[in-house]
Amino acid sequence: MKATIVTIGDEILIGQIVDTNSVSIARKLNTAGITIVEKCSIGDKREEIIATIERAMERSEVVAITGGLGPTKDDITKHTLAEMFHSELRYNATEGDHVRQLLERRGIAFTELNRSQAMLPECCTVLHNAHGTAPGMWFDTERGGVVVALPGVPFEMEHLMDDEVIPRLKSRFELRSIVHQTLITHGIAESILAERIAAWEDALPDYMHLAYLPAPNVVRLRLSAYDVDEAEARKAMAEEFDKLNTIIGDNIVGMEGATLEERVHEILTTRGQKLAVAESCTGGAIAAKFTAMAGASRYFMAGVVSYSNEAKRDILGVSQESLIKYGAVSEQVAREMAEGVRRVASADYAIATTGIAGPSGGSEEKPVGTVWMAVATPTRTIAVVRNSGTDRGQIISRTTAYAIEMLYNELK
Amino acid sequence: MKATIVTIGDEILIGQIVDTNSVSIARKLNTAGITIVEKCSIGDKREEIIATIERAMERSEVVAITGGLGPTKDDITKHTLAEMFHSELRYNATEGDHVRQLLERRGIAFTELNRSQAMLPECCTVLHNAHGTAPGMWFDTERGGVVVALPGVPFEMEHLMDDEVIPRLKSRFELRSIVHQTLITHGIAESILAERIAAWEDALPDYMHLAYLPAPNVVRLRLSAYDVDEAEARKAMAEEFDKLNTIIGDNIVGMEGATLEERVHEILTTRGQKLAVAESCTGGAIAAKFTAMAGASRYFMAGVVSYSNEAKRDILGVSQESLIKYGAVSEQVAREMAEGVRRVASADYAIATTGIAGPSGGSEEKPVGTVWMAVATPTRTIAVVRNSGTDRGQIISRTTAYAIEMLYNELK
Repeated sequence: MKATIVTIGDEILIGQIVDTNSVSIARKLNTAGITIVEKCSIGDKREEIIATIERAMERSEVVAITGGLGPTKDDITKHTLAEMFHSELRYNATEGDHVRQLLERRGIAFTELNRSQAMLPECCTVLHNAHGTAPGMWFDTERGGVVVALPGVPFEMEHLMDDEVIPRLKSRFELRSIVHQTLITHGIAESILAERIAAWEDALPDYMHLAYLPAPNVVRLRLSAYDVDEAEARKAMAEEFDKLNTIIGDNIVGMEGATLEERVHEILTTRGQKLAVAESCTGGAIAAKFTAMAGASRYFMAGVVSYSNEAKRDILGVSQESLIKYGAVSEQVAREMAEGVRRVASADYAIATTGIAGPSGGSEEKPVGTVWMAVATPTRTIAVVRNSGTDRGQIISRTTAYAIEMLYNELK
Repeated sequence: MKATIVTIGDEILIGQIVDTNSVSIARKLNTAGITIVEKCSIGDKREEIIATIERAMERSEVVAITGGLGPTKDDITKHTLAEMFHSELRYNATEGDHVRQLLERRGIAFTELNRSQAMLPECCTVLHNAHGTAPGMWFDTERGGVVVALPGVPFEMEHLMDDEVIPRLKSRFELRSIVHQTLITHGIAESILAERIAAWEDALPDYMHLAYLPAPNVVRLRLSAYDVDEAEARKAMAEEFDKLNTIIGDNIVGMEGATLEERVHEILTTRGQKLAVAESCTGGAIAAKFTAMAGASRYFMAGVVSYSNEAKRDILGVSQESLIKYGAVSEQVAREMAEGVRRVASADYAIATTGIAGPSGGSEEKPVGTVWMAVATPTRTIAVVRNSGTDRGQIISRTTAYAIEMLYNELK
């Protein structure tokens, strides 16, 4: 069973937004056993929409569309679909009442534009959007396929996929399974990894496809199999990955979405130990990584974004002497920050970062990108200096990854 | 001048990664005056790659491809392009030496796989990748168009676009301008906004296209014009936007990428005033928003992620009595957090958040999503409670947006 995803909106083509909708739709369809053959983004233009949907219907049984369902004049997806399926728009009182109530609760007046959102093609099955004002639409095609149009607001689209689209697809089509399993490695370059596991890769069964996905400090290895028995494929993949333990055991972080912060999260939760973070150049990014995970409050005591020297001194207890003698970006200050936040937050472990994220503030001795990182544990404090390039965003994300890896190495 | 962007990789189709490369390429081509007619993502399959690139060459003069240039077996873009352009792969000593030196500096051994990255189609112009191991390739097509293949690592791709692709396109084609201008509004619903400015929208010149882009608490209005004289179009758009001052002046944040945090950044920088942040449920997300901006160190004194009651008490000076009597998620504690961080960080303004990000921790009286926010200024402290739904990520991002808006309203 094949699907094409079509996202509609000029804002995608001019690069004004990042398209996360198609990611989430792809994942949900895939999990249901549907293979995505193409993702396609086009502008709010009638001819483009018609041509793209027609091409998509030719090559796939399912066409999932998002975007262009808003109340304003630039949104033309609904009108174009009505035209394609030779259907009139008619007012749907159920949806109209829902929109009215939803706006009332938010204290927003119901306008003629909102009313127009309940004007829907007669021939479609309306997919009720409990979380927003634009309903989804399900069209059965002459070829026996399905075209589904969903609103572009990510939250609303996701609920419609889960509550309406996936259950309907499952009851409509007989779906076989697609299985992906991903193993996460850290601390080994992609090319070295590929050489180390070359014999293993060559011996994989034909129906398993291996992909390498490199990211800062991490390479993910993904095995995929299409149109298989799910339980059998999962078991076979797990066995293949098990063989890697003897080859690259030290570099394995875990399976699936596993990130180093997730492993740290698990370890600290299990052990009942506490974490605190003192950040200068990463500016809260490390704290945000941990606190984004549900349950972080069980071990995450506190983070301090000590951007100023005063904050390093007054909140963390870094000595004025170290700040003057070594400067804020120094091994000494990194160590004192880690030890200081560990103490004031009553934590077992602490991470600290202090560096020059740029674009200004660099010197010959300490160029932009210079970052000192420290980890304080119940038994010792370690510190490392790294240069992470010249781009502010890169420096923040690389330092975040390195610092969490330092802590993970102390914990594992 | 038209372009199609093609991103290659199974990881995109199964929803394992978010495609930010095409966003950045779209933006850069657009700025150079090239209109994107389609963005297309396909898997690492020879036939798909050939069919998609051929279709792209038919409908656009420029085809920009990323992905599939890595050293491992799953990457087949280079071989497929060589086949399409009837060209042999040949070892390029310059690129080979570059890869060897790059790996040496990183302490990684040069392998046969790395050597293969310098095997390049004879017919292409090699685009030197100073920041990575996979060179870019530029192919001139028989129709007089251009196909460019770039590595999928975002940082490397961006440098190649800026340093090689855009300058070459500019010297190769005579490009007219595309102009986009975006005005940011806050605190007004999309449908109400559309009604308020309907007459203005109807009176816009035909060549200007208006789009509405809603986001949490913000609606962006974008005017676009294609194939125009840049200076004239910019002036005309600025005049149109000026007219909105009398209609929705109170809701205007600013132009272009303007976000509320950027406006706060500008205001505090200009006034020489200082900011501090105390976060519970947002877990560092507010601090990360400010510190992601270059120059934040001029006003951002400190952030405290006071996840635990101990941190609220010991670092921020929240009273034990308030924590017990009202609970951590309360107006009283939010106020004391804001006032506390303002004091310990010697700041002029402070933001505080305390809430239940979920999925657990909610009660009947304070369900998941309940968040108290406070802003302390030199003259007063204000506090507001909001419920931001049930999704942890949404609660964090909405609270971040609301809290920054609260501060902005105090500053403007």
